[in-house]
Amino acid sequence: MDKVNIIKVGGKIVEDPAALEQFLQDFAKISGHKLLVHGGGTLATELAEKLGIENKMTEGRRITDAETLKIVTMVYGGLINKNIVARLQAKNINALGLTGADLNLIRSGKRPVKEIDYGYVGDVQEVQGDVIADLLKLGIVPVLAPITHDKKGQLLNTNADTIAAETAKALAGFFEVHLIYCFEKKGVLMNPEDENSLISEIDSALFKEYVEQGIIQGGMIPKLQNAFDAIRCGVKDVTITKAQDILLGRGSKIIQ
Amino acid sequence: MDKVNIIKVGGKIVEDPAALEQFLQDFAKISGHKLLVHGGGTLATELAEKLGIENKMTEGRRITDAETLKIVTMVYGGLINKNIVARLQAKNINALGLTGADLNLIRSGKRPVKEIDYGYVGDVQEVQGDVIADLLKLGIVPVLAPITHDKKGQLLNTNADTIAAETAKALAGFFEVHLIYCFEKKGVLMNPEDENSLISEIDSALFKEYVEQGIIQGGMIPKLQNAFDAIRCGVKDVTITKAQDILLGRGSKIIQ
Repeated sequence: MDKVNIIKVGGKIVEDPAALEQFLQDFAKISGHKLLVHGGGTLATELAEKLGIENKMTEGRRITDAETLKIVTMVYGGLINKNIVARLQAKNINALGLTGADLNLIRSGKRPVKEIDYGYVGDVQEVQGDVIADLLKLGIVPVLAPITHDKKGQLLNTNADTIAAETAKALAGFFEVHLIYCFEKKGVLMNPEDENSLISEIDSALFKEYVEQGIIQGGMIPKLQNAFDAIRCGVKDVTITKAQDILLGRGSKIIQ
Repeated sequence: MDKVNIIKVGGKIVEDPAALEQFLQDFAKISGHKLLVHGGGTLATELAEKLGIENKMTEGRRITDAETLKIVTMVYGGLINKNIVARLQAKNINALGLTGADLNLIRSGKRPVKEIDYGYVGDVQEVQGDVIADLLKLGIVPVLAPITHDKKGQLLNTNADTIAAETAKALAGFFEVHLIYCFEKKGVLMNPEDENSLISEIDSALFKEYVEQGIIQGGMIPKLQNAFDAIRCGVKDVTITKAQDILLGRGSKIIQ
C-alpha cells in the first residue's frame, strides 16, 4: 500500500511569511503522496478588526456569524490558500487549492444550537476519500482550506485539525496514512514553557492520566482526541511536531 | 468531437445575489461539458473602500498594487468562487473552483511597465488545455476565478474575458468549443440605450466598420477582439448575450 503524509500546519506558521516559506520549502521536499491542510491564524481576526466586524466569542470559542463567514472564506479559501498554491507551484509541486465544497470533498452539518450558537460552523459528516485518493494518484498535492459545505449551498467554517483527522481517516482505506500536526512547539510538552520536556510517545491511557493531572490542557486536548480517533479508524500514526522539524521525524508520536 | 460550453459571467450578475442564483440555475441546466469563468464586479472595489485602500486608476484602468492584489485574491478567488461552487454543488453540479495557479492551469507574465505600470496584472502566456480537458472528461465543472500566476510564486490579477478566450483556445484541440460571454445586455447593440437594436451576427469586417463609426466602443472592443482571436484559433463560435437568455440561444454571434 502506498504511503501518504497528511500535514496540518497551524495559523502561527501561516501568518508569518518567513516561517511559511521555510515550511513550504521543507514540505516540497517530502517524497511521495502528500496533502496539506492549513489553518488561518489571526489573519482573519485582523481583517475583521479592520472592517469593524466584532470578533464574537462565547466561552472562549469564536462565533461565526454571516459576516465572519465571509471573512474566513476570503482569507482562508482565497488569500492564504491561493498564495500557498502559487508558492508550491513555484517549487514544482502540483498543488491544487480546495475547500470541502470543491468536488463535494467534505460535507458537513451546521453545528446544532445547544447552550451556544456557534453560527456558520460545520461538523464534518462525510469526506470523499476515493476522490481525494484519485487526485493523489495523479500526482496532485491537495491544499485544503478549513471551509466545508452542507451540499445545500451553504459554506461552513470548520476546524482545520478536524479536517486533517477526518481526511486521514477517509484515506485509510486507500493508503498507509501518516498524519502530522505541525505547530510552533516541539510537540506535546510536560511543561509548556520547557521545550526539553517533550513527551515522545503517548497512548490513550497516558493521555487520560495527563489530562486528569492537568499536564495536557487547552487546545491540545481536542487535537489529541482527533489523533486518537484517527488511529482507531485506521490511520497508521499521528505525530505532533514543530513545523521546523518536519523533515527530521521528531515530535510526539501518538499511538493506540 | 465532444462539445464544451465555456461561459463567462460578468461582475454585474455576480454582485447581485438574486441574478446570480437565477444564472446558476440556468447554468446547471446546460447539458454536456461546461466551464464557468466569473468576474468580480464592484465587490472588490467595495471591500477596498471599506479597508481604506485607494482604488488607483490610470486612464480609466485599474492599477493592482500589492494591497489590491490581496483584495482580489480574497474576493475573486475566495468569496465569489467558493460561493458559486457551493451553490452549484447544491444543484448536483460537480463544481471545482480554480485559479490559474491551481494545477498550474494558467501561467501569465506580469504586464511590462510602459507608459502605465498596471502593477500585479498578468497577461496570459500558457493555458494547460490538456489538464482542463481531463477534468472536463471526468465530469468536473471547472469554475475559474480571474487570478493567474507566474509559476514563480506570484499571483496576478487577470482579465476574466481574456481567461475565457484563452481557455477556449486551449481547449479547441480537444473539444468543439462554444464560448459565451454573458452580461447585462442582450448582446452587441447598435444603440446601447435600445435593447431592440441587437446586432445578431458580426464578422471582422463589420466589426472594423462599426468601431470606425463609433457604434462599437469602450469595453466592447477588447471583448470582441478576444472573440475574433478565439475564432481564428479554432473556437467554433462566440456568442455575446444577456445572462438571462443563456438557455435561449439568443444574442450576438461572432463569426470569422
